[in-house]
Amino acid sequence: MRADTPILGVRALFFDVFGTLVDWRTSVAREAKAVLRPLGANLDWEVFADAWRNEYQPAMEAVRAGRQPFAKLDVLHRHNLERILPRFGVPALPEEAVAGLNLAWHRLDAWPEVPAALARLKRKFWLAPLSNGNISLMVDLARRNQFPWDAILGAEIARDFKPKPRVYLAACEAFDLKPEQCMLVAAHSNDLAAAAALGLRTAHVARPNEHGPGKGERAPSVPVDVAGKDLNDVADKLGV
Amino acid sequence: MRADTPILGVRALFFDVFGTLVDWRTSVAREAKAVLRPLGANLDWEVFADAWRNEYQPAMEAVRAGRQPFAKLDVLHRHNLERILPRFGVPALPEEAVAGLNLAWHRLDAWPEVPAALARLKRKFWLAPLSNGNISLMVDLARRNQFPWDAILGAEIARDFKPKPRVYLAACEAFDLKPEQCMLVAAHSNDLAAAAALGLRTAHVARPNEHGPGKGERAPSVPVDVAGKDLNDVADKLGV
Repeated sequence: MRADTPILGVRALFFDVFGTLVDWRTSVAREAKAVLRPLGANLDWEVFADAWRNEYQPAMEAVRAGRQPFAKLDVLHRHNLERILPRFGVPALPEEAVAGLNLAWHRLDAWPEVPAALARLKRKFWLAPLSNGNISLMVDLARRNQFPWDAILGAEIARDFKPKPRVYLAACEAFDLKPEQCMLVAAHSNDLAAAAALGLRTAHVARPNEHGPGKGERAPSVPVDVAGKDLNDVADKLGV
Repeated sequence: MRADTPILGVRALFFDVFGTLVDWRTSVAREAKAVLRPLGANLDWEVFADAWRNEYQPAMEAVRAGRQPFAKLDVLHRHNLERILPRFGVPALPEEAVAGLNLAWHRLDAWPEVPAALARLKRKFWLAPLSNGNISLMVDLARRNQFPWDAILGAEIARDFKPKPRVYLAACEAFDLKPEQCMLVAAHSNDLAAAAALGLRTAHVARPNEHGPGKGERAPSVPVDVAGKDLNDVADKLGV
């Protein structure tokens, strides 16, 4: 390894998942259509996915601020789903349909280059998700998309949500590593800024279409150690 | 799946690791010899491994009983190592040697059939270690032996040690499963009895040589759902 590579001393890569590794918007729209269309609903499915996702930060903020005890993201997603369904004029649904729809987040597809890029990175680094998603959700996404995790870290281990410092630090501690031996890979500058403030190294992945065509971070808005146009580009720049 | 198979409704398999999946005794003896012999020590290496392992339950008991806060098994192993080295007449060692020797537990080899048997089982079940070992130790063993874990569960997640109920229940909860949807696979009847008391299904694996030739559980001494002569036999009996 050359002394000037940005990975000098980095032993583990932690990954944001929603948006960074998986295309939640297209996948949730597809899953919502598959469940709700046969029940008679006819919505703009991408707008529905956006509306569901828009409830995400406020729901986590209640936990981060201490107003609510920690709950798995599946539980928050369910609560959020029940808030938005009436807004879209969807009539009361059978419990089975709501529960099945809530698991849409377990059936997200990876951005195309991700599985092969993770396999490359695994040869050199320990890999774990550092997501606000719960463990079972991460396992379903890993099995669906062949994510080769060494462990599932993140919110459920720390019992709080990013960007609270404890979530990043709990991941470093689980791997017996100092923050500077860990690198967060994410498509979101605020996530990377929170990690960098704690001493982690950071890599930005461009996901310019995360929130729809042209609606996503094309480049980081904060200083990072590495910025790539996709995960293979990050791997190239890490010298893998 | 036939209705009379013992796996009816079982979705996840949890594994004891030391003794059940890996041959700690031979491996620790080998690693101790590799570190200490060049420093002039000449011990009975299997006896040394046994002595180190004999400190294991008392050290965890201090945590289980609430006399000490939770600490990773690596920390307990280090404390135990410092207790036994003088007993074997080993003079004071450089810190690097003690730290390196302590990681002997990260370099244990699997019993021969384990990696292929786990690969078979992974096609049908979610798999996780449910060990008293810490997460980083589990990752090192998994990378060394190709254990295809879906997640690393066990003591560090629960912040207590088996056979405390919380350790088993935290694993079920992490996978969003009821205890009866989970099966513990172990070579130790006391571990299986603790799991069964909480409603988990149980599978015993014979490891007749765990503590030396002829010194290990050849069969369970408690009722179990499945008993196999090795992990492939368990997989056969689970209909995989």
